[in-house]
Amino acid sequence: MRPYELIKAKRDNKTLDPADIRVFIDAYTKGDVTDYQMSAMCMAVFFRGLNAVELGAWTRAMLESGEVLDLSETKGIKVDKHSTGGVGDKVSLSLAPLAAACGVPVPMISGRGLGHTGGTLDKLESIPGFRVDLSVADYRRLVRDVGCCLIGQTATLAPADKKLYALRDVTATVDCIPLIASSIMSKKMAEGIDALVLDVKVGSGAFMKTIENARTLATTMIGIGREMGKQVVALLTDMDQPLGRAIGNSLEVIEAVEMLRRKAPADYTEITLALTAEMLVLGGKAKTDAEARALLFQAMDSGAAEKKLCEIVAAQGGNPKAITDLSLLPRARTTVPVKAPKDGVVTAIDSEAIGLAAMALGAGRAKSSDVIDPAVGFMLEKKVGDTVKAGEPLVTMHVNDDARVKEVSERVIAAYTLGTKAPAPRPLVLERIG
Amino acid sequence: MRPYELIKAKRDNKTLDPADIRVFIDAYTKGDVTDYQMSAMCMAVFFRGLNAVELGAWTRAMLESGEVLDLSETKGIKVDKHSTGGVGDKVSLSLAPLAAACGVPVPMISGRGLGHTGGTLDKLESIPGFRVDLSVADYRRLVRDVGCCLIGQTATLAPADKKLYALRDVTATVDCIPLIASSIMSKKMAEGIDALVLDVKVGSGAFMKTIENARTLATTMIGIGREMGKQVVALLTDMDQPLGRAIGNSLEVIEAVEMLRRKAPADYTEITLALTAEMLVLGGKAKTDAEARALLFQAMDSGAAEKKLCEIVAAQGGNPKAITDLSLLPRARTTVPVKAPKDGVVTAIDSEAIGLAAMALGAGRAKSSDVIDPAVGFMLEKKVGDTVKAGEPLVTMHVNDDARVKEVSERVIAAYTLGTKAPAPRPLVLERIG
Repeated sequence: MRPYELIKAKRDNKTLDPADIRVFIDAYTKGDVTDYQMSAMCMAVFFRGLNAVELGAWTRAMLESGEVLDLSETKGIKVDKHSTGGVGDKVSLSLAPLAAACGVPVPMISGRGLGHTGGTLDKLESIPGFRVDLSVADYRRLVRDVGCCLIGQTATLAPADKKLYALRDVTATVDCIPLIASSIMSKKMAEGIDALVLDVKVGSGAFMKTIENARTLATTMIGIGREMGKQVVALLTDMDQPLGRAIGNSLEVIEAVEMLRRKAPADYTEITLALTAEMLVLGGKAKTDAEARALLFQAMDSGAAEKKLCEIVAAQGGNPKAITDLSLLPRARTTVPVKAPKDGVVTAIDSEAIGLAAMALGAGRAKSSDVIDPAVGFMLEKKVGDTVKAGEPLVTMHVNDDARVKEVSERVIAAYTLGTKAPAPRPLVLERIG
Repeated sequence: MRPYELIKAKRDNKTLDPADIRVFIDAYTKGDVTDYQMSAMCMAVFFRGLNAVELGAWTRAMLESGEVLDLSETKGIKVDKHSTGGVGDKVSLSLAPLAAACGVPVPMISGRGLGHTGGTLDKLESIPGFRVDLSVADYRRLVRDVGCCLIGQTATLAPADKKLYALRDVTATVDCIPLIASSIMSKKMAEGIDALVLDVKVGSGAFMKTIENARTLATTMIGIGREMGKQVVALLTDMDQPLGRAIGNSLEVIEAVEMLRRKAPADYTEITLALTAEMLVLGGKAKTDAEARALLFQAMDSGAAEKKLCEIVAAQGGNPKAITDLSLLPRARTTVPVKAPKDGVVTAIDSEAIGLAAMALGAGRAKSSDVIDPAVGFMLEKKVGDTVKAGEPLVTMHVNDDARVKEVSERVIAAYTLGTKAPAPRPLVLERIG
């Protein structure tokens, strides 16, 4: 089938042949299928969807458009985690060393922050010397020898996805579940993993605003995994307010290390433990969630998890002393409280608005060429359900540029809703699918 | 609204603001909106449609992307006819001189043939010397002085449509009624007309296969006309078999002249009279269809219509003697009968297959760079309902290249269905809308 016929077939709700999808994606990667044909196809997919077989073929074609890393020299079941992105989501920073400390190899390829959400790579780079641009050979070696490696996307992995994502971004075809699912899964499968845990965020601060959409995305990704012979488990987790208290790169590393010391906020701790426990079960290190959690507490309390993080940092060129002595991490010049304008109970925190405020302070990027200040950010002093008196701090801002204080303070105040009655607490893990 | 937001709004079934549509189309014409954004928009329009106001704005933006011809120096109500295209459709060749002979000025911009359908320009060019590439100034002058001018699309008329049509053609967004309607209407409105008669073909050989689709297309175009203050009437006409007996450029000119002499087949004659009568009523030359038809018969029987055709031919550089003496038109070297393989009654003729067979003989183009042989083509000796004996000719082929005879004969035989019982006759004009 020619590209025209394939677009027409999808438009007319016919089922596409997997071999035709393969040829189409391959031709797109090479430039023989044009951007304008692919954008018409993506819009047709937006309306018509892709069934499980089509989606498997689509994802596999994107995956095999580039290198698929071979981690067979590492023994054991290699497991990664992927999050759909939230504000204050520093789960990977504590989850990766925890899982590795419990014997599950973690090959993890992450992204950078853009807009209201931060990126794991940016957070890691706030550790002095830490390098995320390792070669594939080094990545393979560290997964084998250290049990974990955290790097950025390389040009050789799933180039079709890279090209397609840029196109979708300007043609209003990003928020389409089959295209989201195939994009994520093609990149994750290229890492060389055996199994995957998905953290699908739900709520006002997340990409998926409703539990129904989150469930569809999760089951779609699990279906793709099954089609490719990989085990995938998904947790749908709450993102109606930021996760933990720290927002900002260095501040989030500090909170992550504190989690390994069992000193981090409960919401962040619980989400991390739930996801890491799934990794231990998938990795064959525990039979049940309870057994996995016991291993995780042991890894925290024995210091093994923090030691593993130090090993990872050292192996990737960073200074491990910055982990054992957190004062060596970048710190902002000053802190400024954002004070509550009145008495009340925090009934809501707009995660997206808080994320954008942190970006305005210098902690994130509006466009990919912006430079991040690793030291700045927020510590949320009050979260949903907390009582506050007028003049008490809602947030402590960590600031390097005084000129931004006024605007950012106003944004923070606007992001908080103060009421009279605490809302009913929401569960952190809304659903498990797998 | 940025292009991205406008695509997303249409995708999400929101109503677009006319001013935003105007900016979007203008930016596309200039190249500021990319082809891949426009193709995503067209696919979204395929699924969501355009309401009357959106469609008016879309068409007006395409119309005003180029020159809108001013024919105000010609007195009277200027009326054109547009056909959605069929096989053997030489209606314009007789309709234009008939209407002009009755005092209705006919400014007509036509296209070339591609695939199974022929084009008015190609047919006209089989008249020795006839030129269709006149300047806009000559066009204006001939409409004023001769009462008719028949030329090809110029680069200055509706360039947005030209660009958009090429894009739709490769992105499976051609068969979308609002886009078809706006494409036709933007080109027709650029001619400088006051009113328009539409011949919407329905049937196996037409673009619109069902009466419902034809009706929707017709009412959509009438709606656009209304939005622009132009009167538009549509006839839905049968295209389940080729129109008339002649297929091929010179052969169709001959049949058209014979129509003016009242010697042409009944189906072609009746469709031409019905459409031209509508033009006379729109043009204020007759109050009723009956009155209009009386004028048309008078124009034929007095020789005024043929004389008008000779005037048009002469004014456009052609030899008018080729009209009065049809033997001066190009003739093929030889004729070859295609014989019926068995006794029977013709129950169907596949118009598209016959059109493609004529193309294979050299009468049409597979791609726009192909060269046409004006002399070759078919005379259909048997049409639907006719009884035929084995060995009797179904079609007489007019041939210049003997090498093509075998393949084309087989195609013709395959296009005819011979049965035992004549089907019920179909009405020629299925519906009038306006």
